[in-house]
Amino acid sequence: MKISFIAIGTELLIGQVTDTNSGAIARHIAPYGWEINDIQVIDDNEPDIIRAVERALATSDVVVTTGGLGPTSDDITKHVLTRFFGGRLVESPEVLENIRRIFNKRGFDLNRLTSLQAMVPDNCTVIQNRVGTAPIMWWERDGKVLVSMPGVPFETETMWKEEVFPRLLRRFPSDMAIAHATLLVTDYTESALAEYIADFERDLPEYLHLAYLPKQGTIRLRLDGKHPDADFITLEVKRYAAMLAQLLGPAVIAERDASPAEILIDLAREKGLKIASAESCTGGNIAHAITAVPGASDVFNGAVVSYSNQVKISLLHVDPATIDSLGAVSEPVAAMMAAGALEACGADVAVSTSGIAGPGGGSAEKPVGTVCMGVAVKGRATESYTFRFAGDRNRIIDSATRRAIILAIKAIR
Amino acid sequence: MKISFIAIGTELLIGQVTDTNSGAIARHIAPYGWEINDIQVIDDNEPDIIRAVERALATSDVVVTTGGLGPTSDDITKHVLTRFFGGRLVESPEVLENIRRIFNKRGFDLNRLTSLQAMVPDNCTVIQNRVGTAPIMWWERDGKVLVSMPGVPFETETMWKEEVFPRLLRRFPSDMAIAHATLLVTDYTESALAEYIADFERDLPEYLHLAYLPKQGTIRLRLDGKHPDADFITLEVKRYAAMLAQLLGPAVIAERDASPAEILIDLAREKGLKIASAESCTGGNIAHAITAVPGASDVFNGAVVSYSNQVKISLLHVDPATIDSLGAVSEPVAAMMAAGALEACGADVAVSTSGIAGPGGGSAEKPVGTVCMGVAVKGRATESYTFRFAGDRNRIIDSATRRAIILAIKAIR
Repeated sequence: MKISFIAIGTELLIGQVTDTNSGAIARHIAPYGWEINDIQVIDDNEPDIIRAVERALATSDVVVTTGGLGPTSDDITKHVLTRFFGGRLVESPEVLENIRRIFNKRGFDLNRLTSLQAMVPDNCTVIQNRVGTAPIMWWERDGKVLVSMPGVPFETETMWKEEVFPRLLRRFPSDMAIAHATLLVTDYTESALAEYIADFERDLPEYLHLAYLPKQGTIRLRLDGKHPDADFITLEVKRYAAMLAQLLGPAVIAERDASPAEILIDLAREKGLKIASAESCTGGNIAHAITAVPGASDVFNGAVVSYSNQVKISLLHVDPATIDSLGAVSEPVAAMMAAGALEACGADVAVSTSGIAGPGGGSAEKPVGTVCMGVAVKGRATESYTFRFAGDRNRIIDSATRRAIILAIKAIR
Repeated sequence: MKISFIAIGTELLIGQVTDTNSGAIARHIAPYGWEINDIQVIDDNEPDIIRAVERALATSDVVVTTGGLGPTSDDITKHVLTRFFGGRLVESPEVLENIRRIFNKRGFDLNRLTSLQAMVPDNCTVIQNRVGTAPIMWWERDGKVLVSMPGVPFETETMWKEEVFPRLLRRFPSDMAIAHATLLVTDYTESALAEYIADFERDLPEYLHLAYLPKQGTIRLRLDGKHPDADFITLEVKRYAAMLAQLLGPAVIAERDASPAEILIDLAREKGLKIASAESCTGGNIAHAITAVPGASDVFNGAVVSYSNQVKISLLHVDPATIDSLGAVSEPVAAMMAAGALEACGADVAVSTSGIAGPGGGSAEKPVGTVCMGVAVKGRATESYTFRFAGDRNRIIDSATRRAIILAIKAIR
C-alpha cells in the first residue's frame, strides 16, 4: 500500500525545522510492505494545501498530512480540510475533556485559544490524541483515506504507532501475513556484505526479501517475509534469519533492531558490568550516546574527557614520557587512557579514543581521521587499535563514537 | 524570488536519509529576500521526476533539484533531465579532469563507473563541482532556471554558496540592496520577547523587517533591510540593530549568528581562559557540543562525566555527606562538581549539571526535568542554579546543555 505524505508549515520551508515525521513513518511501515510514495512540504495557505491534497489523492489510496493543527491563526489545516471535504466545525466534548486532562497534567489552566482545538469537523472520524491537544482527523472519500496529524514528532510518532497505522492496516487488510527479523551487522561495508551473502540472497525463496539498512556505522539486515500462511512465514523468517546469523558469525552484534549503545547497555546489565570511557577526539560523545539511552545509569559509571594532555596525565595517569615520545594520538596512549578510565571510574570495561578530528592537526603520518582506541576489561590485557575515518569533523567524531561502542560490545559479549 | 525544491532519491522516502539540503538553502537565501516555495521529495524514476519538474516550473522561476547524480544505474536524474530539455550526453574533458583531480586527492584510481560522471548534457551550462565528482547542471527555458545539484549535503551546501546562488543573484538581479544584522538573544521565550520589543517592532520603517528564529535555546533576531540605496540601508540596519541591542541589554549574548558553543569558545580564546565541565545528567553532551566546534582544543581542557556518585566523589571531590543529606540533584552538589572540575582539569571556568533526565527517577519534590547547575570561575565564589526543563529525555539533555553553555558565557563575558 502506498502513502502520499504532506508536511504543512512555513517553519519547514524556511529551514527552521526539518520534517522527520515522514522518515519515522516510512521506517515504521516498511516491514508491513507499505511505502511512502512521495512527500510534499508546503506552506500554511489554503491554495497550496488544497493543491497538494488533490495531487496526493490522485496518486495514492492513503494521504497523511502533518502540521498546521495548532490553535493560533496561522494554523489553518483543520479549517481548509474541513471545507475541502464539505463539513463544518462543531465542538467535541470528548476532545475538550482530553485537552483539559493534558493541561492539568502539565500544570496549566485551559485557555480560550487552546480550547478551540476541541472544535472538530462533523464529517470525519476523530482519533483522540493521547499525548497532545490537537485531535487527529480521518476522512474517507471514494475509497481513499486522508489522515491529518499534528506536526510535533513525538505526538505524530506515538499516535501513528498506537492508533493510526493499526486502523489503516484494518481498513486496507491484506491476504498476506507478514513476518520479519533484523540482524545488526558490523565489520562489513554495505557492498562487501552484499558480496559475501550474495549466494544466500540469490537462493532466498520468493516470499522472502532482504533489505540493507546502514545505520550508525552498522548495517541492519532486515529479512521480510510475506505469505498467505502466517505460521509458515513466521517459521521461515526465523529459519532463514538463523542461517544468516550463522553465515555471518561474530559480525552479528545483535539479532534485533537496536542502536549499538542500547545493545552495550543491555549486555552490560545482563552481565552485571559497569562501563566507562576516556575520550579525547570524541570529546564526550561516547558518554553522550550511552547516557542518551534511558536506564544508562544502571551500568554507566562515567567518563573522563581528556582534551588536554594535562588531564590525560592527572586524571587518567597516562605516562607523560609516552605522550612526548609517541604523541597523544598513539595506541600506547589510548591503551593507558582506557586503563586509566577503568580505574578512575571503578568500571569493568572502558573504551578510549585519541585522534585527529580535524580540520586542523593532521600530518602525513597521522592524517585527519586517524583515531587510536583502547579497550580495557578488568582482569585482561588492554587492547588497542588504530582506525582511519573519512569525512568532516562531525562525521569523524560520530564514526569514532560508534566504533568505540562496538569495540566495547565485542569485548564483553 | 521563489524557488521550488525537488529532492530525488529512494533513500529519502524509506526514512534512511533525511533531506537537509532544502533547509540549508532556505536559511542561506532568506537574508536576500529569496524563499523556498515548496519541496517535493520523490523516487528515482522518470515519470515521477518529470511530473515533479513540470509542477515546479509551473509555480516558480527557479527550480533546484538535488540527488540522483551518482554513477550507478539507479541514479537517473541527469539522463531524465537531459531528455526533458531535449539534449544528449557528451563527454566533457574539463569535468573528467576535475573527477581525476578529486580521485587523486583521495588516493583512488579513476574507475570506469565514475568516469561516466564526465558525460554531461550538450544543452546546459555545466558548473564544476569543486568538492565532488558529480557536475552541477544549469538549464534555462522560457526565462526559468532549473539547477540540478548532487544529494551529498556537504557538496550541495558548498557549491550553493560558492557558485550556484551567486549566479542566481546575477541572473535575477534586484533593484533593491539588502543588508542584515543578527542578535543572539537569551532569557526570553519567543512570545515574551515579542511582547517586550513590540513597540520597537511596530515603529520599524517599512524597509526593515524583524525575523524571530528560535535556535538552540536562544532566539536569533535577524533584522533584514531592503532599499534601493545600498549605503543607506547598510547604515540603517546597523543603527536599528544597535538600538535593539541596547533595548535588550545583557540578554544579547552575541551580535552575530553563531551557536552558543562557538560564542563561548571565541570568548574564552579572546580572554585567554580554559574551560571544563562536570556532567551528570547531560552525560558528556556539554563537552561534545563544545568539542564539535573546530579549534575547541585551544580553550577546552576536558570534562568529568560523573554519572555515578562514586565518580563525583573520587574525581570531583564532592562531599559524600552532602550527597547523602541533600541528594546528588542539589545546588550544593552541583557547585562542588563545578569547583571540582575547575581543579581537576586545571581550567579557569567550569560548568556542571546534576539533574533528572527521565523517564524514571523523578519525585514530587524533584520531578523529571529538574537540573541543578554550578558555575565556577577561578578566584570567584561558585554559583549555583536550579532549572526545570520540559520534554522527553533527549530534549531535557539538550536544553540543559545549552543552558549550561549560556551560563558559562555569561560568567566570563
